[in-house]
Amino acid sequence: MISWKNLDTLTSFQELSKTKQVNLPEVMSGENGAERVRKYSVPMAEGLNYNYAAKKVDDDILELLVKLGEEAQLADKFKALYNGEVINTGEQRLVMHQMVRGQLGDPVTADGVDKRTFYVEQQQKIADFANKVHAGEIVNEAGEKFTTVVQIGIGGSDLGPRALYIALENWARANDTLKLEAKFVSNVDPDDAAAVLNSIDVAHSLFIVVSKSGTTLETLTNETFVKEALKKEGLNPSKHMLAVTSETSPMAKSEDYLAAFFMDDYIGGRFSSSSAVGGAVLSLAFGPEVFAQFLEGAAEEDKLSAGEDVLKNPEMMDALISVYERNVLGYPTTALLPYSQALSRLPAHLQQASMESNGKSVNRFGEPINYQTGAILFGEPGTNGQHSFYQLLHQGTDIVPLQFVGFKNSQIGTDVEIQGSTSQQKLCANVVAQIVAFACGRPNENPNKNFKGGRPSSIITGDQLTPKSLGALLAHFENKFMFEGFLWNINSFDQEGVQLGKILANQVLAHETDGALKEYSDLLNI
Amino acid sequence: MISWKNLDTLTSFQELSKTKQVNLPEVMSGENGAERVRKYSVPMAEGLNYNYAAKKVDDDILELLVKLGEEAQLADKFKALYNGEVINTGEQRLVMHQMVRGQLGDPVTADGVDKRTFYVEQQQKIADFANKVHAGEIVNEAGEKFTTVVQIGIGGSDLGPRALYIALENWARANDTLKLEAKFVSNVDPDDAAAVLNSIDVAHSLFIVVSKSGTTLETLTNETFVKEALKKEGLNPSKHMLAVTSETSPMAKSEDYLAAFFMDDYIGGRFSSSSAVGGAVLSLAFGPEVFAQFLEGAAEEDKLSAGEDVLKNPEMMDALISVYERNVLGYPTTALLPYSQALSRLPAHLQQASMESNGKSVNRFGEPINYQTGAILFGEPGTNGQHSFYQLLHQGTDIVPLQFVGFKNSQIGTDVEIQGSTSQQKLCANVVAQIVAFACGRPNENPNKNFKGGRPSSIITGDQLTPKSLGALLAHFENKFMFEGFLWNINSFDQEGVQLGKILANQVLAHETDGALKEYSDLLNI
Repeated sequence: MISWKNLDTLTSFQELSKTKQVNLPEVMSGENGAERVRKYSVPMAEGLNYNYAAKKVDDDILELLVKLGEEAQLADKFKALYNGEVINTGEQRLVMHQMVRGQLGDPVTADGVDKRTFYVEQQQKIADFANKVHAGEIVNEAGEKFTTVVQIGIGGSDLGPRALYIALENWARANDTLKLEAKFVSNVDPDDAAAVLNSIDVAHSLFIVVSKSGTTLETLTNETFVKEALKKEGLNPSKHMLAVTSETSPMAKSEDYLAAFFMDDYIGGRFSSSSAVGGAVLSLAFGPEVFAQFLEGAAEEDKLSAGEDVLKNPEMMDALISVYERNVLGYPTTALLPYSQALSRLPAHLQQASMESNGKSVNRFGEPINYQTGAILFGEPGTNGQHSFYQLLHQGTDIVPLQFVGFKNSQIGTDVEIQGSTSQQKLCANVVAQIVAFACGRPNENPNKNFKGGRPSSIITGDQLTPKSLGALLAHFENKFMFEGFLWNINSFDQEGVQLGKILANQVLAHETDGALKEYSDLLNI
Repeated sequence: MISWKNLDTLTSFQELSKTKQVNLPEVMSGENGAERVRKYSVPMAEGLNYNYAAKKVDDDILELLVKLGEEAQLADKFKALYNGEVINTGEQRLVMHQMVRGQLGDPVTADGVDKRTFYVEQQQKIADFANKVHAGEIVNEAGEKFTTVVQIGIGGSDLGPRALYIALENWARANDTLKLEAKFVSNVDPDDAAAVLNSIDVAHSLFIVVSKSGTTLETLTNETFVKEALKKEGLNPSKHMLAVTSETSPMAKSEDYLAAFFMDDYIGGRFSSSSAVGGAVLSLAFGPEVFAQFLEGAAEEDKLSAGEDVLKNPEMMDALISVYERNVLGYPTTALLPYSQALSRLPAHLQQASMESNGKSVNRFGEPINYQTGAILFGEPGTNGQHSFYQLLHQGTDIVPLQFVGFKNSQIGTDVEIQGSTSQQKLCANVVAQIVAFACGRPNENPNKNFKGGRPSSIITGDQLTPKSLGALLAHFENKFMFEGFLWNINSFDQEGVQLGKILANQVLAHETDGALKEYSDLLNI
């Protein structure tokens, strides 16, 4: 029997708060540090590995974290979720984004259909369509092959698919599987769509309009923007446009689209990359086999997330340590630092996934809570960040827990050796050096050059960023954020905090304003 | 006579800490809110305006902030800086980045030359070179015009110039002044350079190698990477490469470059966008006149920064409010939210400018301080962010002070009207709505839909993002961060915190590791 309790009512959390904290520079020194690196490590799917040696934990704290994971019933709650309970209580919805990647538990029927069957059907529809585009069976009005695919969407319909496309673009080129170049239009700023349209050959472009509800203002506006541009070139928009939406949306049965692919209300935007939202654009760009590999990697990681042994569950461990850092150690921000240029937009996507899911002040039952929830998540790729904001991370007055990601091999494979090492080796040497510099610091008589250390980090390592390992990586973070939400006893699957702005924006556009709203509107001449 | 004192020793700061705090939802309601929007506003250069009505200030607090600005001698300290005092005490250097844009005070002689003359000479050299490239007088080995310019640099030699290029690319296209397309290579990750090289026609590309010291590992590595690629195509690298460096660097007099342009030790990387570091790539991309307009806008804002009346000085006001938020209200993060897709990388650049400058734990004299310094700065363009991390900003447990930027007009000018408004109007309506939603909130019986408000923000507004207004905007933030540093009594112009990582990375590459460092190295197979 699952019981949903606030974090601060759990015995193990209270114990954790009283337990002696770890002196990181001390424990990470010498042979003890080496031993920690060997020991505090959990295998992930697809050859990835989660290492938390440089986090402020020791065997005592880990024992309590395991107890906390059990007391909070993390495994049971995830099981309830994938077996079809209404976990998104705010909107009274199931939470099915893992089901898109595989069947973890019982069959789940909703809206009169088996959900796994429904999702697989959509994947098949997308694959068939993409294969026909690649084979030249679906072509433009002049009978020519499409060369470009443009995703029109915002938030979850943009950040995830865009981050994943960038993550695999060079891999796909190197492996000869880049079928169409992808572009993305998201912002209602008209310069966004205009710039993308200026950069492509619209006559050879497919446009995917992505909106679950079929009513997202920005997306519908940009759809019109694109249609006007197509008409101006003498092209028929309905021969260039696709829809990804829910079956109940106004877009679902419209004749404006070459085809429509469906997701449903059980997949939140920020978790929709594995659904048709990411599937259509990625299958068209890289081929459906590549997207299938991505799903496979994610499904493998989901299986690990479903494991009951906390110490062998990378997502539970990561979430528990994160909550310890947030609610016991009191750190309000966290940085994601991938040492991989291909992951340049992963931080922006995970910023959404984390902050939109867990930026809540009431628990699942709408009651105020007395502890902090979701942290600010930010990040940029390394080594770039080392020459930028790392100064504050090393010597600033606040401690920021860090999450590194690094791979042994590059994606393209072109490299150059200077001073006895390749660029890839330099990249890896830097991430390793940073972990130790942050953890251990180094005393210096000059206070300006003194490093106190004591700044915790973890690292996910792997052989190479491929569709499979990328899937595992994404699932890791999605499931981590879910477990954090369970621990905080909040609903990670709604987003009521975005509503008020929409209401007020409509008032501005209708000129129904007074007070400050009117004055600000005058400032911008609206 | 200037005295450098810690923030917490200043009488006005102590008074501020005791003064009654502002109830934002209350003061921003009704006619009082409208009055605040009219009153709490400072004109900036180039038609920009800084409005802080939705910050947690009132006349009492403002009076104390003015006193604090005076007690901290902000105007005198800036004057000392631009008149050539050694303000960067850590490295015993002048701080001259404003001098690149104009002469604010006395002539400054260093290294035996008048600095203003030196900087103007470099600008002229760059302009002459760029004009010859655009006129087809400087061409490639086949006698053909160059079409592309690639900046090779990292940190300050990358983020600023890249953000500025993106900010003006569409404006330049719309105004027919895009001369060369620009690309950027920064990361030591070999996939970064490889991907950029794959995307361009190297035979028609100029490469600018940017490193003040001429020894930056990443940049020299990528330079070699590019040279190898040029040689593979049968091209002579020295006919394609330029250098931006200091006169004393090994790159300065090398025959490897078509030309070398100089900056000096008095311009920190993160403040170097206005120097040859940004000047070479932007003059080649847009024409030297456009870069000159950018400098003009920045110089105009610098003049406002030099004003002694705090209430009429947008940079001092912004810095004082920021320090009030950080050290009295206790907010550890801040978000920069430009409602302009063209400013998509401005947050990443300002993240560096702020966090590298002010992420310090000792004062100018190397003494530990007892208060927080630089905050975490992050951000993404709106309206995109509204569909992403704004949930936490509206309803999370932490308060994040916000800084909006918005323009009345788009850059390209192509727009579409839907439901009675253009995209640009929708964009502006959204930013205005967000300010009021964050400040005032809105009660709701359903706790999940309740907005408490009380979340402070400011906004910089303008007619359009142009070279001039962009210059003013950049100078605003650079000078804001400088004034923050003065208030915190820290040296904002060095960055010792990046050194330890470099030392450890070299140990890893030399295989001189033990303990945790060795184990981590094994994990990544270095």
